[in-house]
Amino acid sequence: MMPLGELAAALGCEYRGKPDMPVHGVATLEKAGPLQLSFLANPKYTAQLQDTDAGVVIVTPEMAGKRTGAVILSQDPYLTFAKAAAFFEKPRAFPPGIHPSAVVAASAQIHPRAHIGPFCSVGDNSVIGPECVLESHVSVGPDCTLGRGCHIKPHVTLVQDCLLDEDVLIHSGAVIGADGFGLARDTNGWVKVPQLGGVRIGRGCEIGANTTIDRGTLDDTVLEEDVHLDNQIQIAHNVRIGAHTVMAGCSAVAGSATIGQNCLIGGNVGVLGHLQVCDNVTLQARTLVTRSITKPGSYSSAAPLQETAQWRRNAVRMRQLDDMARTLKKLDKAQETDRHG
Amino acid sequence: MMPLGELAAALGCEYRGKPDMPVHGVATLEKAGPLQLSFLANPKYTAQLQDTDAGVVIVTPEMAGKRTGAVILSQDPYLTFAKAAAFFEKPRAFPPGIHPSAVVAASAQIHPRAHIGPFCSVGDNSVIGPECVLESHVSVGPDCTLGRGCHIKPHVTLVQDCLLDEDVLIHSGAVIGADGFGLARDTNGWVKVPQLGGVRIGRGCEIGANTTIDRGTLDDTVLEEDVHLDNQIQIAHNVRIGAHTVMAGCSAVAGSATIGQNCLIGGNVGVLGHLQVCDNVTLQARTLVTRSITKPGSYSSAAPLQETAQWRRNAVRMRQLDDMARTLKKLDKAQETDRHG
Amino acid sequence: MMPLGELAAALGCEYRGKPDMPVHGVATLEKAGPLQLSFLANPKYTAQLQDTDAGVVIVTPEMAGKRTGAVILSQDPYLTFAKAAAFFEKPRAFPPGIHPSAVVAASAQIHPRAHIGPFCSVGDNSVIGPECVLESHVSVGPDCTLGRGCHIKPHVTLVQDCLLDEDVLIHSGAVIGADGFGLARDTNGWVKVPQLGGVRIGRGCEIGANTTIDRGTLDDTVLEEDVHLDNQIQIAHNVRIGAHTVMAGCSAVAGSATIGQNCLIGGNVGVLGHLQVCDNVTLQARTLVTRSITKPGSYSSAAPLQETAQWRRNAVRMRQLDDMARTLKKLDKAQETDRHG
Repeated sequence: MMPLGELAAALGCEYRGKPDMPVHGVATLEKAGPLQLSFLANPKYTAQLQDTDAGVVIVTPEMAGKRTGAVILSQDPYLTFAKAAAFFEKPRAFPPGIHPSAVVAASAQIHPRAHIGPFCSVGDNSVIGPECVLESHVSVGPDCTLGRGCHIKPHVTLVQDCLLDEDVLIHSGAVIGADGFGLARDTNGWVKVPQLGGVRIGRGCEIGANTTIDRGTLDDTVLEEDVHLDNQIQIAHNVRIGAHTVMAGCSAVAGSATIGQNCLIGGNVGVLGHLQVCDNVTLQARTLVTRSITKPGSYSSAAPLQETAQWRRNAVRMRQLDDMARTLKKLDKAQETDRHG
Repeated sequence: MMPLGELAAALGCEYRGKPDMPVHGVATLEKAGPLQLSFLANPKYTAQLQDTDAGVVIVTPEMAGKRTGAVILSQDPYLTFAKAAAFFEKPRAFPPGIHPSAVVAASAQIHPRAHIGPFCSVGDNSVIGPECVLESHVSVGPDCTLGRGCHIKPHVTLVQDCLLDEDVLIHSGAVIGADGFGLARDTNGWVKVPQLGGVRIGRGCEIGANTTIDRGTLDDTVLEEDVHLDNQIQIAHNVRIGAHTVMAGCSAVAGSATIGQNCLIGGNVGVLGHLQVCDNVTLQARTLVTRSITKPGSYSSAAPLQETAQWRRNAVRMRQLDDMARTLKKLDKAQETDRHG
Repeated sequence: MMPLGELAAALGCEYRGKPDMPVHGVATLEKAGPLQLSFLANPKYTAQLQDTDAGVVIVTPEMAGKRTGAVILSQDPYLTFAKAAAFFEKPRAFPPGIHPSAVVAASAQIHPRAHIGPFCSVGDNSVIGPECVLESHVSVGPDCTLGRGCHIKPHVTLVQDCLLDEDVLIHSGAVIGADGFGLARDTNGWVKVPQLGGVRIGRGCEIGANTTIDRGTLDDTVLEEDVHLDNQIQIAHNVRIGAHTVMAGCSAVAGSATIGQNCLIGGNVGVLGHLQVCDNVTLQARTLVTRSITKPGSYSSAAPLQETAQWRRNAVRMRQLDDMARTLKKLDKAQETDRHG
C-alpha cells in the first residue's frame, strides 16, 4: 500500500485527492476498484472515466476535468503508469548464493551477491557479476561475462563468448551465442564456416522468450544499450542493432545487417543480410527490407487483407502486372497521339 | 492386439470381415501389412484401395464397394482413424512420485498421484494436480496451478501465474507466462511496463513446441477450452482465443487482440494488436490481419508465387499501382467521353 | 600457431610468402593484424586488399597481383577460409563419461567414449554412440539412437523415436520428435490424431537453435544427409528434405511436403502441406510456396518495400486489381476496334 500523496510525490506528479488515500495496486479502468490506481492514455476511452470505480486515475491535465474523483496528473499517463505499477509488483526474493544442485566450473567466478538457482551450469572462465540472478535451468557456457544486475530467466542458454553489460534481462528459452549459419560449398557437400566471434549485449537490454542471437563469424554480434527484443526473434551473426531500438515478436535480421538507433520495428519484419537501416526508422508489421534504408521514416510491404474469393481473383492479376503496365502505357501513348497527333 | 470385432465396437462402427481377425497396429495404405489397420479419407487416393496390403481399412460406406477385404465403415474415416490409432499408442508409464533430483518449494503442493520427473522445479505456492505429468527439465515458477491430468513435456517453462485447467498438453520448449512486451518511452530511454497479469489455459488445450504465450499486463492472457496451437506460435499479452480454435505453426497474435471460437488459422498468420476476429473465421496461411474481421468466412493476403525473373518485373509495378490506376481511370473516362461526348 | 607453408599445404593451396611466417588466427580484412589470416571472397571489397594489415590473405589467382604481401591462392577463397578457420578454433574438451548429475535409464546404452554432461537425461532403450557429446540440460527421450560423433548443445530435446545418423549437430533449444499437429473434428471438439512415427536425420546434418522438427503421424519425418537448417525453423510431420538442402532462419514446411536435394531456401519461406519442391530450387526470402514446383530455378513472392505513405495508396489498388485488369482489357479491345474496325 502507498498513500496517494506519497505515490504522486514518488512519481514527481501533481495530484488531486486526499493525500492519505490508500492505493493498493493497479488495474484497468474497467476492473479497478476504489483502492486501485488506473490510467487513461488513449482519448478514445475517455467515456470510461465516468464509469470506472478506480480510486485514482492517471490522466493528462486536459482530461482532469472529465473526472470528479482523485487523479494524478501527467503529460504521459502511460509512462507514469509504468513507473507507478513498478511500486506494486510482487517482489520475488533471490537470495545470494549457489543452489546445491548447480554445477559451476572451477575456473568460473560467481560474485558472492549473485543468485544461482537450481539446475544451473556455469562454464569455464565465465564471470557472474554482483546482483545477478540465474533463476533455474540456466546454461552459461564458457567465456561469458555477466555485468551487475543481469537477470536470466529459466531455460536460457548463453552458449559461449557472451558479454552482457549491466541490467540485461533475458527471458526463458532464449539462446544467445549459438553458431551463426555459415556454410561454404565444396564438391561433396557443405563445409561449416567456423564461428569464432561472440555476442555483446548493452546495458539495460531485454531479450524475449525463445529469441535467438547468434555469435559472429569473426567479429561480434552486437546489441547496443537499451535494445528491447520481443519473443521468437532471430538475430543472425554479425548483426548490429543500435541503442533504444525495439523490435516486436517473430522478426528476423539476417547476417551482417545493421539496424540504427531509435528504430521501431513491428512484428514479423525481415531484414535481408548485409543491409543497413538508418536511425529513426519505423518498419510496419511484416515488412521485408530488401534494400538499405537511408532516410528516416515509416516503411511497409505487407500485402493487404482480402476475402479469399476476392484475393484469388486479384492474386492472378499480380502475376500479370507488368503486362498490364505495358498495355496501359501503350493505350496512354495512343490516346496522347490521338489527342495531339 | 485387438480383434476386429472388438475394435469396431469400441469405435461404434459397422464393419465387414471376421470378428476375430487380429489388428496389431496402424499404418498408411502404402505401408500397412495384413495385420494392420489403415484408412482412406481423401477420395483422391481411392486407387490405393486396390493395392494396399492392409488387413482392414476404414472407409466411408460409399467406398466400401471398392474393396474386397475387411473394412470398418465410418462417415468420417479420418476421425475414426484418430480414435482407432489411440488404441495402439505405445503406453508410457509415468508412475506417481517425485524424482529425487527434482526441486520443489516448501509451499508448493504436489498431488500424490502426480509424476514429477528428473530436473523439474516447482516454485512457491504452485499446485500440481492429480494425474499430472512433468516429464523432465520442467520449470514451474511461483503461483501456478495445474488441473487434473495436465501433461508437460521436457524443457517447458511455466514462468509464473499460469492457471491450467484439466488435460492441458504442453510440448517441449514452450514458454508460458513470460512478461508481455510493454514499454513506455522516457527521455533517456525505455521504461519497462510491469507485467502483473497471468495466463489462463482452458480444458483440453494443446500448446506446440517452442510456442510462447505471454502473461497479461493487468488482466490475464486467455485460451478458452480445446484450443490447439502448433509449434513456434507467439501469443502476446492480453490476447484472448476462443474455444475450439486451432492455429498452425509460426503464427503470431499481437497484444490485446481477440480471436473468436472455431477459427481455423493457417501457418505464419499475423494478427495485429487490439483487433477482433469473430467466430468461424478461416485465415489462409501467411494472412496478415490488419483490421478487425466481423464476418465469418475465409480471408487471405499472401502474395502469389512466381519465378523470380517474372516476380522482379511485376514487383516494380506493385510500387506504381496507384499511378497505373489513375492513368487507367483517365483513359476510361476519355473513352466514355469519346463514345458519348 | 601454424607456419604459412604448413597451413597452405594442409589446405592444398599454392601460396606466396615466407614458409615459416607464423599465422596465429583469422580475422576480417578490416581487423586482421600481421599475424593473422584473412580472405577476399567478394571482388566488391578489393580496395581493402591495399589497406589491410593482415599477414596473409586468401585470394583468387586473378586477385593476387593486387597485393604485395603474402597470399594463399584459391579458386574459392570463402571455402578455403572455412577450412583454414577450423585450424584455429578454440578446442573444447568433452572427456568421455557420464556426469554424476545425469539421469540415464537402465535400458539405455551409453558408449564408453560418449560424453554426457550435467543435467542430461537419457530415456528407455535409447542408444548414444561413440564420440557423441551431450553438453548439458539435454533431454533424450525413449527409443532414440545417436550415431557416432553427434554433438548436442545445451537445452536440446529429442522427444522420442529420433534416429540420428553420424555427425549430426543440434543447437540449443531445438526440439526434435514432438508430436505432429494432427486433429480430427468431432461433434464436441477436436480429437488428437496419435502421432506414432519418428524423425530420421541424415549424416552431417545441422539443426539450428530453437528449430522444431515434428515426428511423423505413421511414417517418419526425414532429413537426408548434409541438410542444414538455421534457427527457428519449423518442420512439420512427415516432411522429407533432400540431401544438401540448406534453409535459412524462420522458414516453415507444412505437413507431408517434400523438398528436393540441393535446394537453397531463404529466410521466412513457407511451403504449404503436401506440396513437392523438386531438386535445385532456390526460394528467395519470404517466398510462400502455394503449388508444387517441378522446374529447377529461382522463385519469389514477397511484396516489395515501400514508404508507408506510398504503400497505403498502392495497397488499396491491390484489392482492385481484377477490376483494373478488366477495364484495361475493355479499353484495349476498344482501341483495337477503333484501329481496325
